[in-house]
Amino acid sequence: MTDEIGVGMVGHAFMGAVHSHAWRNVHRFFDVPLTPRLAVLGGRDATRAKDAATKYGWAAVETDWRALVARDDVQIVDICTPGDTHAEIALAALAAGKHVLCEKPLANTVAEAEAMAAAAEEAATRGVRSMVAFNYRRVPAIALARKLVAEGRIGDIRHVRAVYLQDWLSDPEAPMTWRLRRELAGSGALGDLGAHIVDAAQYVTGDLITGVSGTTETFVRSRPDGDGRAEVTVDDAAVFMARFSSGALGTFEATRYALGRKNAMRLEVNGTRGSLAFDFEAMNELSAYFEDDGPAAGFRRILVTEPDHPYFGAWWPPGHLIGYEHTFTHEVADFLTAIGGGEDPAPGFADGLRVQRVLSAVEESAGQQSAWTTIGDPR
Amino acid sequence: MTDEIGVGMVGHAFMGAVHSHAWRNVHRFFDVPLTPRLAVLGGRDATRAKDAATKYGWAAVETDWRALVARDDVQIVDICTPGDTHAEIALAALAAGKHVLCEKPLANTVAEAEAMAAAAEEAATRGVRSMVAFNYRRVPAIALARKLVAEGRIGDIRHVRAVYLQDWLSDPEAPMTWRLRRELAGSGALGDLGAHIVDAAQYVTGDLITGVSGTTETFVRSRPDGDGRAEVTVDDAAVFMARFSSGALGTFEATRYALGRKNAMRLEVNGTRGSLAFDFEAMNELSAYFEDDGPAAGFRRILVTEPDHPYFGAWWPPGHLIGYEHTFTHEVADFLTAIGGGEDPAPGFADGLRVQRVLSAVEESAGQQSAWTTIGDPR
Amino acid sequence: MTDEIGVGMVGHAFMGAVHSHAWRNVHRFFDVPLTPRLAVLGGRDATRAKDAATKYGWAAVETDWRALVARDDVQIVDICTPGDTHAEIALAALAAGKHVLCEKPLANTVAEAEAMAAAAEEAATRGVRSMVAFNYRRVPAIALARKLVAEGRIGDIRHVRAVYLQDWLSDPEAPMTWRLRRELAGSGALGDLGAHIVDAAQYVTGDLITGVSGTTETFVRSRPDGDGRAEVTVDDAAVFMARFSSGALGTFEATRYALGRKNAMRLEVNGTRGSLAFDFEAMNELSAYFEDDGPAAGFRRILVTEPDHPYFGAWWPPGHLIGYEHTFTHEVADFLTAIGGGEDPAPGFADGLRVQRVLSAVEESAGQQSAWTTIGDPR
Amino acid sequence: MTDEIGVGMVGHAFMGAVHSHAWRNVHRFFDVPLTPRLAVLGGRDATRAKDAATKYGWAAVETDWRALVARDDVQIVDICTPGDTHAEIALAALAAGKHVLCEKPLANTVAEAEAMAAAAEEAATRGVRSMVAFNYRRVPAIALARKLVAEGRIGDIRHVRAVYLQDWLSDPEAPMTWRLRRELAGSGALGDLGAHIVDAAQYVTGDLITGVSGTTETFVRSRPDGDGRAEVTVDDAAVFMARFSSGALGTFEATRYALGRKNAMRLEVNGTRGSLAFDFEAMNELSAYFEDDGPAAGFRRILVTEPDHPYFGAWWPPGHLIGYEHTFTHEVADFLTAIGGGEDPAPGFADGLRVQRVLSAVEESAGQQSAWTTIGDPR
Ligand SMILES: NC(=O)C1=CN([C@@H]2O[C@H](COP(=O)(O)OP(=O)(O)OC[C@H]3O[C@@H](n4cnc5c(N)ncnc54)[C@H](O)[C@@H]3O)[C@@H](O)[C@H]2O)C=CC1
Ligand SMILES: NC(=O)C1=CN([C@@H]2O[C@H](COP(=O)(O)OP(=O)(O)OC[C@H]3O[C@@H](n4cnc5c(N)ncnc54)[C@H](O)[C@@H]3O)[C@@H](O)[C@H]2O)C=CC1
Ligand SMILES: NC(=O)C1=CN([C@@H]2O[C@H](COP(=O)(O)OP(=O)(O)OC[C@H]3O[C@@H](n4cnc5c(N)ncnc54)[C@H](O)[C@@H]3O)[C@@H](O)[C@H]2O)C=CC1
Ligand SMILES: NC(=O)C1=CN([C@@H]2O[C@H](COP(=O)(O)OP(=O)(O)OC[C@H]3O[C@@H](n4cnc5c(N)ncnc54)[C@H](O)[C@@H]3O)[C@@H](O)[C@H]2O)C=CC1
Repeated sequence: MTDEIGVGMVGHAFMGAVHSHAWRNVHRFFDVPLTPRLAVLGGRDATRAKDAATKYGWAAVETDWRALVARDDVQIVDICTPGDTHAEIALAALAAGKHVLCEKPLANTVAEAEAMAAAAEEAATRGVRSMVAFNYRRVPAIALARKLVAEGRIGDIRHVRAVYLQDWLSDPEAPMTWRLRRELAGSGALGDLGAHIVDAAQYVTGDLITGVSGTTETFVRSRPDGDGRAEVTVDDAAVFMARFSSGALGTFEATRYALGRKNAMRLEVNGTRGSLAFDFEAMNELSAYFEDDGPAAGFRRILVTEPDHPYFGAWWPPGHLIGYEHTFTHEVADFLTAIGGGEDPAPGFADGLRVQRVLSAVEESAGQQSAWTTIGDPR
Repeated sequence: MTDEIGVGMVGHAFMGAVHSHAWRNVHRFFDVPLTPRLAVLGGRDATRAKDAATKYGWAAVETDWRALVARDDVQIVDICTPGDTHAEIALAALAAGKHVLCEKPLANTVAEAEAMAAAAEEAATRGVRSMVAFNYRRVPAIALARKLVAEGRIGDIRHVRAVYLQDWLSDPEAPMTWRLRRELAGSGALGDLGAHIVDAAQYVTGDLITGVSGTTETFVRSRPDGDGRAEVTVDDAAVFMARFSSGALGTFEATRYALGRKNAMRLEVNGTRGSLAFDFEAMNELSAYFEDDGPAAGFRRILVTEPDHPYFGAWWPPGHLIGYEHTFTHEVADFLTAIGGGEDPAPGFADGLRVQRVLSAVEESAGQQSAWTTIGDPR
Repeated sequence: MTDEIGVGMVGHAFMGAVHSHAWRNVHRFFDVPLTPRLAVLGGRDATRAKDAATKYGWAAVETDWRALVARDDVQIVDICTPGDTHAEIALAALAAGKHVLCEKPLANTVAEAEAMAAAAEEAATRGVRSMVAFNYRRVPAIALARKLVAEGRIGDIRHVRAVYLQDWLSDPEAPMTWRLRRELAGSGALGDLGAHIVDAAQYVTGDLITGVSGTTETFVRSRPDGDGRAEVTVDDAAVFMARFSSGALGTFEATRYALGRKNAMRLEVNGTRGSLAFDFEAMNELSAYFEDDGPAAGFRRILVTEPDHPYFGAWWPPGHLIGYEHTFTHEVADFLTAIGGGEDPAPGFADGLRVQRVLSAVEESAGQQSAWTTIGDPR
Repeated sequence: MTDEIGVGMVGHAFMGAVHSHAWRNVHRFFDVPLTPRLAVLGGRDATRAKDAATKYGWAAVETDWRALVARDDVQIVDICTPGDTHAEIALAALAAGKHVLCEKPLANTVAEAEAMAAAAEEAATRGVRSMVAFNYRRVPAIALARKLVAEGRIGDIRHVRAVYLQDWLSDPEAPMTWRLRRELAGSGALGDLGAHIVDAAQYVTGDLITGVSGTTETFVRSRPDGDGRAEVTVDDAAVFMARFSSGALGTFEATRYALGRKNAMRLEVNGTRGSLAFDFEAMNELSAYFEDDGPAAGFRRILVTEPDHPYFGAWWPPGHLIGYEHTFTHEVADFLTAIGGGEDPAPGFADGLRVQRVLSAVEESAGQQSAWTTIGDPR
């Protein structure tokens, strides 16, 4: 077994469970240069945090994230809390010389994200690494898509078509959550789901969005909260058009109201030589069309489960599918590899900032009758 | 056999072939009140028109469409020519008391479309009928979608997602055609493909678009034409966001550059009780999700080939698919039924005008940095 | 227009309607050397035959098929009646020097089929052509499959997997029909549906079945018939295993009780270099897997709608699908081309006989505890 | 945390890795009454066993499985070795009062399986539990299928259609393995893949196979082995027809030569009220057709990822897919629950024996010209 590295994780609900699984199992499947030790779990309530620590296998708990960050047995800080806390925790951790894995979206505002990207850049000079948890980059099918684009297999890209469709808010009586409060979540479907497809689109194309025109909607304005009702202060759905620096045209949509679509994070790119299409609801597949296949051309349903496909060599024989949490195992494997190798992992905070700028531009455009809004410094 | 009604058709290439097939065969499958007689085919070149008349079964030819319109043996004028000619021919035909079936888009400009809608309205008072050839309404799956929406099966609509993807221009050396000249085609993918999805979206939802924000692109600016090259003066692709009067949010995209997508006219609507999805590349299927299906809910792949499905009773046993041209047979069946029954068929010229206003608003928005543009009088 | 050739068709219900459509339209789409004239329609009841003739466009009727065969204005006899009549009509027509298109299965017994094949062979020496109506060979996707196999694209074939699933008898109260009477239909699902998949499997592989082991079942033993009930004397379902002369292993199933499967005529072949799969419920598609596609290998969903795909050049632009009846239009196009070119069309009666021998061997095996039963003379 | 229970696992390659993952993580997701302790790993080679123990998290190793079985810190023996060892290890473990989880197929012969089932039955009287590792029962979609059948949603079953298609032996130069040696594996595709679909078919239908007719094939008779070649002594592919005690008709096929099919374990059942279909290559989906859905009937693509679907409540939000190894986590969760609750888990060794009898009957039939072979005592 390789040297251990202590992890301190803040937040222990949905992402907490998934990240715990990844930290606990990554070295069972990947040859990582460092073996994670589940040192400390951070949660505000001591009892609940202790229960979670037992359940997920963490050695200790802290009820104050500052204490967690300060501990000597913590070299990595993993931020699994709502967006309002990301900046504060990440900045403190980087300052304390701790590597940081931060959930997406990087922050709730561009200003916060800028501060984080700057801090990360500075910390890197001290050998401190940081990464934003855009786990969809770690779906083997999406990583393969990126590879095929990079190899030129689909030529120059003309169209990007990305949607992220869920339906869990469709019922107007679904209860209030922090995800629907602007002060905690920053935005609604836009930041939660839109962030993923913006990052995935930029990653797969290897290109950056330079401008957008968008509009947003809140279908249900208040929701049950305890005995009363609380106001929803974020968007329920966001749609926008985009241009990439190459000239490619993009359409994006994020919603939590597409009944029957449970986690339909979909991406299609059309190039001058071919096309690629992905749908997370069939996450082990990539569809690929190559013009030069001639009369036998057709979208190939590639089962991305071969030993020579990205990440899959660590798992099972072909056709033995993997699931959602594997993308996080891949994520921490890459993060540990970067730390061990002394290199900056991708996506870094600068990538998170780029996404933030796009989301912010969408909101700005939406506030101005969808007027086209350019991304100041796309890089 | 029922009474005959003489048809004069102008244009004899793609749509000419399809419409001929429909007129020739409609009464073999549908109990229409009038049996079409393929009286006159209109074409500018006498030899080519005669050849086409022989091939498609027309009794006579005229090289001047005015002569065709004037003939006593013509009671229906079917316009299968490029958009620049629609208004002139249709106005003349209506004035002459001939029923008119006009290919889409109704016209190249809103002004023309307004004149046509006004003329159609006036002609209707004289018992003269007119219809615009939005054949996708006649796909059984789309007609079934409309029925399910009208019955309230998916509740109130929140999202519309429509794309029309083709790829025949992806090759920059594909030759020039009238479809790429603004003076003939009015617009590019927008009017050609976008018109269909705007009409289909309005038809299926039973709702009208009230505003849009759009952008367009011409990827290949000139193309081979004879010995030289000609300038492309229309859009290659158009994308836009839309609002419906009910508040539903829509995204639309039309392109001829989506490699591998051959005729992917797709429509998805998400309502408060369910969702519907259609893709013309699997045109005999409708996907439908009903929330109240409970734990066994899932998108149903309805093969729309049952005797009690729209139009299908005229054809074959279940599972014996129909194809593209059947939608035109349905179209002329409905048109003949309306004429015979003394009723106005749908979609009428007023519907064509509504679509035209949307397309025009998209172009206007695209010319103004995608600023939100309302549709003056949506009705 | 090319020279006319007179057609006399016996039977005017399901196949009669489809064949009429094909005869009426074939020359509108294909450059056939002979233009069919819908001369005479044969039916036992004069009134119903006349009505059908009007509806489908036939010039005259005969209530005795012998009279039809004898007419001078009939050069082609098209047999669209139940299997009990095929042999008698075909033999008389061939003897009278008429070309014969005979619906499948060729006959109700091997003895009849042998007599028909012998007569066809003899007639061919006199320039009289005969063809059995295995229309699924004329699905562009299946013709493309044959082409890919013939080109060696999937190597040597190891597995054939064929099912033909329908569900129209699932309801035990569905009424009696001639299809469920042995004296008229010969057999049930076996001859009706099994015949198609045996022919398609032999056609696509270019190989012949040499032996089978089978079993059959009649789920519902009697059905409503007029005021009473009639006994079902054929199989409701038939399943069998087969060997091809190359050593390939096959599985076959035909049933009318697979709820939800409307016309699922499916064929998959696995070779040493690739695989092909087809499902009639998505009849415009062929799935093809090529091992040498490497890490980007996957089943290609080929939309078989390109101008250079079999038959499709006669129809519409890519992605504009065709349907069931087109396969019959292709069939008569090929038949007319063979007659005009003085060549024997395929599949001939000898091919029909080969299928009949397989079906007969299945029944024999089923009657002997599924004992392996070889096909006497596979050719 | 609940009481610990010591596990000793024999074999540490493919299944060893998967089972280790399940034992290591089950209590992180399921409320199991006993928490597994990964006590001892058994392997013949000390070095390799130690490496595996480190990698997968086992506390100790034994190179003799008898020593492992005898250890006091082992209460559960998990058998992850080839079939030739199952009987011996299981019998010893049961005799020693250890609960046994045994990989499938239960044994290499019916005689062994009978001895194991008898021993298991006797051991159960002492509170010692045993289970055979048919993990596909633990796919949520298959468990849901069973539930829908048990609730009568598809009525009485008429057809079962099961295939298990892989392609890893398609290349004749793929190397020799124990799986191709009769003395180690018992049989080839039949026992390896066929066992799964026989069990799944019997499980989902709740019915037993009473007779079969089968045939087998070995396409490649020898394979590279070290410097030379070794003879393949098992089947490469097996196909068979079956009858269930209810009268349902089944077809089965298992092969490792279906190019492009990676792990296509597929099952379809057609009943009098509906149908169900499953394909492991889309393992999070179940297709279900219900006749009483009327004109909107169609195969529902149920994403089996809802909290109220079998097993899924332990995992992620809807649409966040799970993968292959989850089925093993479900398996050990059920096993621990049965042990803790003092109940016999399913499938027990008696179920494994039933499958073995079917496989044996297939081989017997294949050796006798496919003669129908009844399953002596189906129960
Ligand atoms: N990569 C991905 O696909 C996903 C990412 N996320 C992101 O992960 C983050 C967390 O989301 P979920 O786990 O889904 O939310 P959650 O609501 O399930 O869990 C949030 C956790 O943070 C804790 N927490 C909240 N405020 C805190 C504070 N001030 N100090 C300490 N702990 C605090 C809560 O007690 C809870 O344990 C968010 O940034 C979200 O956007 C969420 C879901 C998926
Ligand atoms: N409903 C649908 O799905 C489709 C509708 N269309 C519409 O149908 C119309 C025709 O399109 P296509 O048939 O595809 O074009 P095409 O280029 O295949 O045929 C146009 C025909 O019009 C004739 N023509 C052109 N200018 C003429 C004039 N001034 N006078 C008389 N004849 C003239 C040409 O000679 C030719 O026969 C257009 O409005 C187009 O938008 C086209 C394709 C599909
Ligand atoms: N190629 C294909 O896919 C299909 C082929 N078929 C075959 O076509 C043939 C006819 O089947 P369908 O048209 O479906 O049956 P149908 O019941 O719809 O029509 C049979 C026709 O034959 C007439 N007929 C019956 N006995 C007659 C006799 N002794 N003399 C003159 N006319 C007689 C009936 O009046 C009726 O018009 C059968 O051989 C059937 O197997 C049927 C359906 C599909
Ligand atoms: N449930 C399922 O889906 C699957 C079940 N299996 C079953 O699992 C069992 C093992 O298969 P795999 O893990 O795939 O094989 P494998 O070849 O990957 O591993 C077999 C292991 O058994 C060990 N072994 C062999 N003989 C031994 C002996 N006499 N004593 C101790 N250790 C011995 C080997 O060293 C190796 O660690 C088989 O019964 C197989 O049928 C295999 C794959 C999938």
